[in-house]
Amino acid sequence: MKTVTILGATGSVGTSTLDLIEREPDRFSVRALTANCDVERLAAAARRTRAELAVVADESCLPALREALRGTDTDAAGGAQAVCDAARSGADLTVGAIVGCAGLRPVMAAVERGGTVVLANKEPLVSAGELVVNAARRFGATLLPADSEHNAIFQCFDPAQVKHVRRIILTASGGPFRDWSLERMRDVTPQQAVAHPNWTMGAKISVDSATMMNKGLELIEAARLFPVDPDRIEIIVHRQSLVHSLVEYADGSVLAQLGPADMRTPIAYCLAWPERMATPMAPLDLVAVGRLDFEAPDDQRFPALALARRALTAGGARPAILNAANEVAVAAFLAGKIGFLEIAAIVADTLDRYDPPAPETLDDVLAIDDEARTIAGERVEDCVT
Amino acid sequence: MKTVTILGATGSVGTSTLDLIEREPDRFSVRALTANCDVERLAAAARRTRAELAVVADESCLPALREALRGTDTDAAGGAQAVCDAARSGADLTVGAIVGCAGLRPVMAAVERGGTVVLANKEPLVSAGELVVNAARRFGATLLPADSEHNAIFQCFDPAQVKHVRRIILTASGGPFRDWSLERMRDVTPQQAVAHPNWTMGAKISVDSATMMNKGLELIEAARLFPVDPDRIEIIVHRQSLVHSLVEYADGSVLAQLGPADMRTPIAYCLAWPERMATPMAPLDLVAVGRLDFEAPDDQRFPALALARRALTAGGARPAILNAANEVAVAAFLAGKIGFLEIAAIVADTLDRYDPPAPETLDDVLAIDDEARTIAGERVEDCVT
Repeated sequence: MKTVTILGATGSVGTSTLDLIEREPDRFSVRALTANCDVERLAAAARRTRAELAVVADESCLPALREALRGTDTDAAGGAQAVCDAARSGADLTVGAIVGCAGLRPVMAAVERGGTVVLANKEPLVSAGELVVNAARRFGATLLPADSEHNAIFQCFDPAQVKHVRRIILTASGGPFRDWSLERMRDVTPQQAVAHPNWTMGAKISVDSATMMNKGLELIEAARLFPVDPDRIEIIVHRQSLVHSLVEYADGSVLAQLGPADMRTPIAYCLAWPERMATPMAPLDLVAVGRLDFEAPDDQRFPALALARRALTAGGARPAILNAANEVAVAAFLAGKIGFLEIAAIVADTLDRYDPPAPETLDDVLAIDDEARTIAGERVEDCVT
Repeated sequence: MKTVTILGATGSVGTSTLDLIEREPDRFSVRALTANCDVERLAAAARRTRAELAVVADESCLPALREALRGTDTDAAGGAQAVCDAARSGADLTVGAIVGCAGLRPVMAAVERGGTVVLANKEPLVSAGELVVNAARRFGATLLPADSEHNAIFQCFDPAQVKHVRRIILTASGGPFRDWSLERMRDVTPQQAVAHPNWTMGAKISVDSATMMNKGLELIEAARLFPVDPDRIEIIVHRQSLVHSLVEYADGSVLAQLGPADMRTPIAYCLAWPERMATPMAPLDLVAVGRLDFEAPDDQRFPALALARRALTAGGARPAILNAANEVAVAAFLAGKIGFLEIAAIVADTLDRYDPPAPETLDDVLAIDDEARTIAGERVEDCVT
């Protein structure tokens, strides 16, 4: 019986995780579930799974949570500290699925307990990557990546053969504008940008896919997770999003993980690791798919890729600034304040204007994130006026 | 330092193996090399690698071998028994690359020593598959498959997760006639059949690829090597021959091994296993390749697939008969005696006419092989007259 804590149990990854766990009640038991303030879904999940603990990050929602859990054996708690306490609750596996920088402290708390931590949000590896990876090393924690690309690499990467890994090849769908001219991309609307061809995703990440900043952030994550030189991590456009990434070895072997474009496969992999478990989706049907295409990404039309690679190479605070500025710029684009091509321009500008020393603590990371947002916000206003 | 013995050192696989070994003289040392009677190449290889022992299967070539090795520290021996002795010479790794049934006894000798045996010819797993696999289990030998498809499966197959393996997907190029109508295939010439689109191979195996009997035999081999139900082994046509095979797990993950169409990759994998080693070929360039295609095989135009699957399911002597009858039929086709479509017909006829009990020893296998060749030969003559 594996005990599981889910940080961010009511979001997309949290819900998928619960779906899988509830299919194998003899294999998993729930230690703690957390949410921001969605009391209804949190309490329902806690009841179904007989969780030991349910936590709302927003303390004002605690009375409602207590009420919703009345008559159950599930304890209730509230506040940011309570979320970190849940992360430290000693589960065999802790899933970090809290969106944004709010997930940093809880993930770090889980890592410092030295257990197995499933990373399902990007901030721990992008904004605080070096800190989190160093902490994992120091405290003996195992980091399992839940997003499809890094999970694919994890499945294909043999840590005992690091010196024989020639390349990691990160696949990118290329987003909805992969075939558009730069001219045409100038006039992209938010509606066009959120229509991702292969995955059903939220607006923010769909825009990141359209600018390919998504892949730039994943490049940084890959470099944190896998001990290879960043120059050995390549990005390739694969429009069907079925080959989730590949690892090439010195003998010429290229190992790839393929699968349906469904987050439940990598989540199930993490839940069952080092074993496997079943998922309910239809198998990948390569005959029905017919063909898999590969092409080089276009750095001219997708400048986010080079921005991310430069931020990765420079290290220190650069990835956190990249991520924060991108969030502000994407929000401004979605609000109709700036054009599609200005997203990368604002990120580049923010990186040019702000060059603090490397963060040494999560507090440093959060301060850098904050300041980068302010600077990016000012640049947005410059664009608007 | 890993000691290596190569049974069949002057053929295609043997030569590739030597090429790789000679690139890493600090990593490998040669115990024994054997050949049928190609004294010149055998002696040259023994000199270059400072092999301890060189053996010619054809004893009449022994004087010439002794002469060619004069002044070296390499011992010389001759005869079928000497080849088996070489197989038992206690190398860390024994490569079984002797073509045809002549390779059966030496491979079994290596297996019975309980070491690591690289299988590079099909007879041990097709004609004597159950005997060889049972012996490997009994004597604690490790079997490493050197042909590209089974090596790909080996790289993707986690023996600890057998119960979570949903399917093995064996890829087939489909051969030069994959797009031809049955009508057109009727008039195929030997010259057309030996022109394989992706691999440079001998005439026999090129014809097997054209009839897809090659894939049928590999299906049988896969079922012997990997403990999954034969129904879970599927064949898919992939015309580029770059995805060498795939393994699907219950969570939806499909692991694949890709690589250049060059035997040195799987051979290097076997040599270095469980580590890796470098090969000199250009890396696989997916962008240059552009696309990978997949389609279902056509059982109507390629009846060899169903013949092989039935032989596998029935087991016993059937696979050995299939293989022997096919060799006779292919030789007859290459000699211009029968038409392309008669190859499968003769195999089917031989299977219909000959149904001996399951072999219990290698002698039984060799007797079945012999008798099946006789019967198939009679059928060839019926066709001619």
